[in-house]
Amino acid sequence: MTFELKKLQKKINASFDNHALLEQALTHRSIGSNNNERLEFLGDSILGFVVADEIYMRFPEADEGVMSRLRAHLVNRESLAIIAQKLDLSDELILGQGEMKSGGKHRSSILSDAVEALIGAIYKDKGLEASRAWVLSVFKNQLESLTLETATKDPKTQLQEYLQARGIAVPKYSVISTTGLDHNQQFKVECQVDGIDNHASSTASSRKKAEQKSASKILKRLIK
Amino acid sequence: MTFELKKLQKKINASFDNHALLEQALTHRSIGSNNNERLEFLGDSILGFVVADEIYMRFPEADEGVMSRLRAHLVNRESLAIIAQKLDLSDELILGQGEMKSGGKHRSSILSDAVEALIGAIYKDKGLEASRAWVLSVFKNQLESLTLETATKDPKTQLQEYLQARGIAVPKYSVISTTGLDHNQQFKVECQVDGIDNHASSTASSRKKAEQKSASKILKRLIK
Repeated sequence: MTFELKKLQKKINASFDNHALLEQALTHRSIGSNNNERLEFLGDSILGFVVADEIYMRFPEADEGVMSRLRAHLVNRESLAIIAQKLDLSDELILGQGEMKSGGKHRSSILSDAVEALIGAIYKDKGLEASRAWVLSVFKNQLESLTLETATKDPKTQLQEYLQARGIAVPKYSVISTTGLDHNQQFKVECQVDGIDNHASSTASSRKKAEQKSASKILKRLIK
Repeated sequence: MTFELKKLQKKINASFDNHALLEQALTHRSIGSNNNERLEFLGDSILGFVVADEIYMRFPEADEGVMSRLRAHLVNRESLAIIAQKLDLSDELILGQGEMKSGGKHRSSILSDAVEALIGAIYKDKGLEASRAWVLSVFKNQLESLTLETATKDPKTQLQEYLQARGIAVPKYSVISTTGLDHNQQFKVECQVDGIDNHASSTASSRKKAEQKSASKILKRLIK
């Protein structure tokens, strides 16, 4: 085993018997065939199962809707990209020239796909328990800070916390128009998130309700 | 163990140590709390993983897009409802009075949810390998007849086969309008599926292309 390979495995806290699997997990499709897409497909399904199982056990009182929201909060492109950054994966990615030049190694879609592919590669190399243990270790902090409130907070609060956790500017809300008379007024409110070029507007019978609806729309886009 | 419980376990080909889990898996939310929704959430994620793993092994040449389509073809509300019917689950479901009266025990959403909940219950009772084995046994025929062509056939063929397999009338295509001149004509074609009250229309530069696009729209709705 080369020194580099040893270092890499130490860094990501996973040792491989089959080094080709590790290499494949880090290979973006811009390289051509034998890339990480198949492993990512597999890893995504393992991640979904491991996190569902964990949430099922940790939150015996949560109903299915709450469990879905907890999982979506925990596992999404941004959270996976953050894990990739913590593992310092950027410089280990194997990218085609074009992707390399355009900064692909810092792109959250590429980073999150690589994390999922790593999960698939650990599974193929060492089996489910090894991949489950790896998932639980990289999600340890997020899992421990997960509470039922995460899934029950109102959309505005959820959006604000989501953005703050990622160092993105807080959303701005502005009333675009009011229509109708007195007790039948309708407020159209726009929510704008500068950092990520995302905005949505909604109409409701109060300014507050319209704000919540707009925040909810943006949240749904962020937590796909 | 009562005679009824023995018969049920034989019928679904799964034996439970914890009979409460089996009962919970068959209990619809119309009954109130302690229903099968949590188990369904868990079972859905196990099913996703087991089928992804199986497709990964069976189709080493398939790329991620093809694997996704193969899984969507295999696992969807209709295919799960068909499995429930084969297991003769309808009469085992525990439904609230309202659902019972309105024929809920034959509704595909309720049937497919129960199958997913059973997968979750087997997992909680006997572990992953038992639930994997059960999934592979109930999907045996569908898995064995799965071919790469399933994912590469054109939308019209796919839609026709999907409907035929379920005993639903074949789709009808009709040109609604043609616009533009000679070599710049645009055809608007509607695809209508009588049996399921579903239709879609699309515009394209040829009648054939517009038919394929319309078929594709309906397919996407059916294979969620």
